[in-house]
Amino acid sequence: MASRVVIVGAGFAGQHAYHELAEAGYEVTLVDRHPYTTFQPLLYQVATGGLNPGDIAFPLRRFVSRSKGRTKFRRATVTGIDTENKRVLTNRGEPIPYDTLVLAQGAGPNFFGIPGAKENARTIYSRAEALAVRDLLFSGLEQMTTQPDRERRFTVLVVGGGATGVEMAGTLAEMKSEAIPVVYPELSQDSFRVVLAEMADTLVAPFDPRLQRYTLHQLRKRGVDIRLGTAVKEVRPDSVDFADGSTMDVDLVIWASGFGAHPEVSEWGMPQGRGGRIEVEPNLQVKGHPDIYAIGDAAIEPGSPLPQLAQPAMQMGSHVGREIVAADKGLPPTPFGYDDKGTMATIGRNAAVAQFPSGRTVTGFPAWALWVGVHLATLLGGRNRLQAMVNTAFRYFAWPQSATNILGDTVVEDVQLDQSAGRPELPQQSE
Amino acid sequence: MASRVVIVGAGFAGQHAYHELAEAGYEVTLVDRHPYTTFQPLLYQVATGGLNPGDIAFPLRRFVSRSKGRTKFRRATVTGIDTENKRVLTNRGEPIPYDTLVLAQGAGPNFFGIPGAKENARTIYSRAEALAVRDLLFSGLEQMTTQPDRERRFTVLVVGGGATGVEMAGTLAEMKSEAIPVVYPELSQDSFRVVLAEMADTLVAPFDPRLQRYTLHQLRKRGVDIRLGTAVKEVRPDSVDFADGSTMDVDLVIWASGFGAHPEVSEWGMPQGRGGRIEVEPNLQVKGHPDIYAIGDAAIEPGSPLPQLAQPAMQMGSHVGREIVAADKGLPPTPFGYDDKGTMATIGRNAAVAQFPSGRTVTGFPAWALWVGVHLATLLGGRNRLQAMVNTAFRYFAWPQSATNILGDTVVEDVQLDQSAGRPELPQQSE
Repeated sequence: MASRVVIVGAGFAGQHAYHELAEAGYEVTLVDRHPYTTFQPLLYQVATGGLNPGDIAFPLRRFVSRSKGRTKFRRATVTGIDTENKRVLTNRGEPIPYDTLVLAQGAGPNFFGIPGAKENARTIYSRAEALAVRDLLFSGLEQMTTQPDRERRFTVLVVGGGATGVEMAGTLAEMKSEAIPVVYPELSQDSFRVVLAEMADTLVAPFDPRLQRYTLHQLRKRGVDIRLGTAVKEVRPDSVDFADGSTMDVDLVIWASGFGAHPEVSEWGMPQGRGGRIEVEPNLQVKGHPDIYAIGDAAIEPGSPLPQLAQPAMQMGSHVGREIVAADKGLPPTPFGYDDKGTMATIGRNAAVAQFPSGRTVTGFPAWALWVGVHLATLLGGRNRLQAMVNTAFRYFAWPQSATNILGDTVVEDVQLDQSAGRPELPQQSE
Repeated sequence: MASRVVIVGAGFAGQHAYHELAEAGYEVTLVDRHPYTTFQPLLYQVATGGLNPGDIAFPLRRFVSRSKGRTKFRRATVTGIDTENKRVLTNRGEPIPYDTLVLAQGAGPNFFGIPGAKENARTIYSRAEALAVRDLLFSGLEQMTTQPDRERRFTVLVVGGGATGVEMAGTLAEMKSEAIPVVYPELSQDSFRVVLAEMADTLVAPFDPRLQRYTLHQLRKRGVDIRLGTAVKEVRPDSVDFADGSTMDVDLVIWASGFGAHPEVSEWGMPQGRGGRIEVEPNLQVKGHPDIYAIGDAAIEPGSPLPQLAQPAMQMGSHVGREIVAADKGLPPTPFGYDDKGTMATIGRNAAVAQFPSGRTVTGFPAWALWVGVHLATLLGGRNRLQAMVNTAFRYFAWPQSATNILGDTVVEDVQLDQSAGRPELPQQSE
């Protein structure tokens, strides 16, 4: 049997592949850039101070130590794949030999080549980025309090009206209306402004039109300045140009628009499709590499591209685990089939949208409660779940004060509102 | 009345002075370098991965927003004191006018001018420093796993046998014996070594001799290599010279020996005594400055110097608050009297020492339980207390795995065992 399996990336996809193979008694080496795995769906809460980073991270050595058998963790960054000799090259330690390789390194933001976006906009797809956003946000507000005569409002522009952008804008709107008056009494509510720009003519496009309208209504009600059909042309340190020729002064741009492959993947010699995702066969084998599989955000099956969400990633992981076992038994490949359990997006307290394959839709408090339940239940590790519950409960009941938990380490220790100094160096993430 | 009081530093002393004055309806401005206050007694747990930084930090704006009345928070670093015009100069915003000033900026480490100590040793007196220690520790172990043939053991030298050094060494010893075998199976226990060097001939000197012996015995039992009567002569990036002429290869030096004033204080024009602490009258008024008080670690009353602990700091804070109110009523100054409630030090799970003014001493589990109870009860904020409980409980029951919660942001993203590159820039702390 293929005794040695190497899994690159310990996100949802990698974890699920790991489980299947560890169960089956394989010699598995899990490789990740970081000593922890991050629960990405709640990163926007870290970015807005609602959760501490520790609440949504889990140590991978602890994760690996839980499974009996011949599994290992290697904290390292993959620098290349030697398909000839079947070895994964990393920045630390000896190359790791494999019989079968699973690529689950996830994806990063996609700036679609828009000038200045990469340099001047922030993303919340990684822990370090979410923390940088949080620190820019709270340090910025802090600084506003010492500039009462400042004419310009502190403006946060969220680019992208998908689930991530909506979650972010909704939470920022609650900060504005509920937290600022209490916690930053020196500031008037008007001194903080939340803008959401979406290229298309609707928010949360994949959802049912009723849910799209509900989302739009809820965000407007919460004071978000929503610009539909508005494409970003260029991002500068303190202003943004839109395609319609208008310009907006901004203090913080949050890029919630699109996933792209990690740049280094292009050096791995794998076939890359749309967005740089690795092209796979229906059974998730990498095209032309029978001993390599790609799953999660990192992979794309040209015939039926899947949304880059937790559910497909988890299912792909489990599928590939079973595929590897089956292949060793000489069984034929089985195409992966996505079992859509429904999708959700949260707008703010008591407001969310959920849609099920049956076509059934839920909004308002029920959808929000559902969202909270599903996310807490999925959080990896009892400890983290408990803490996230404590936090979420406090955020809900002790609001507004709990919106000010700028408690992590400041990646940006002290931020100038004029960010022309450029973004600080942030560690790359593999989640 | 002295309507405007400015308090510099929001540690135990500053918080207690704030409470008294806010209650009395004073216009109080609380100034701190950081947007949060840190619960220093548990920093060693952050340094060893047992607690996340968020568990022992509390947002100061939330703290201030709790009290009705005319109180303000200003996140800023004090750059000077204009006693002439009674204004505090900061790095951010307008100078802050005061009628009465309370200096509670705390203290930093004291390297006693030992060559290389400041550059190459780490402290755990501030959050950022504790995180740097944690990251050096876990990144170092991580790296060891990819160097199985490395001959040298990963050596942590703790300098100072006071409560801080004992807590640190004890926790590291538990990591070695209980966590490493499970979480770093690639490493043998012997590959990790904990050394504690103390200049005096005894540990925890202020405690009863019986407690000193108990502490020594417990640490030795836990595998700490204890060197009494051993003074450090010089600290280099990867080795340490002792006064007896011997040298030791080290991977990490933790400086748990002595408090000193923050260097910038020398520019404030205040009378400074031993360790740079500001000299105060018996009623805690700064000598020669009737409108300025100094409290906590920052202050010293030459006649009766107090230990630099939480208890005296809290009591001084409350006393000064009352003094200011009394002075405004034309009442005579009241000398501060320290009410010693006893002192404790923890060695590890189920092992601690406690000593009461009555002379009564407690050791073992009862002392440990007492220690846990007192510390959790003192933790600022229900939310934090809840979380610290969750964490501490997990650390106790889910041990050993929970010793690997390297979840905060890595101040040091990836560390070489050879630290000759020097320490990263760490933000100064005012706690």
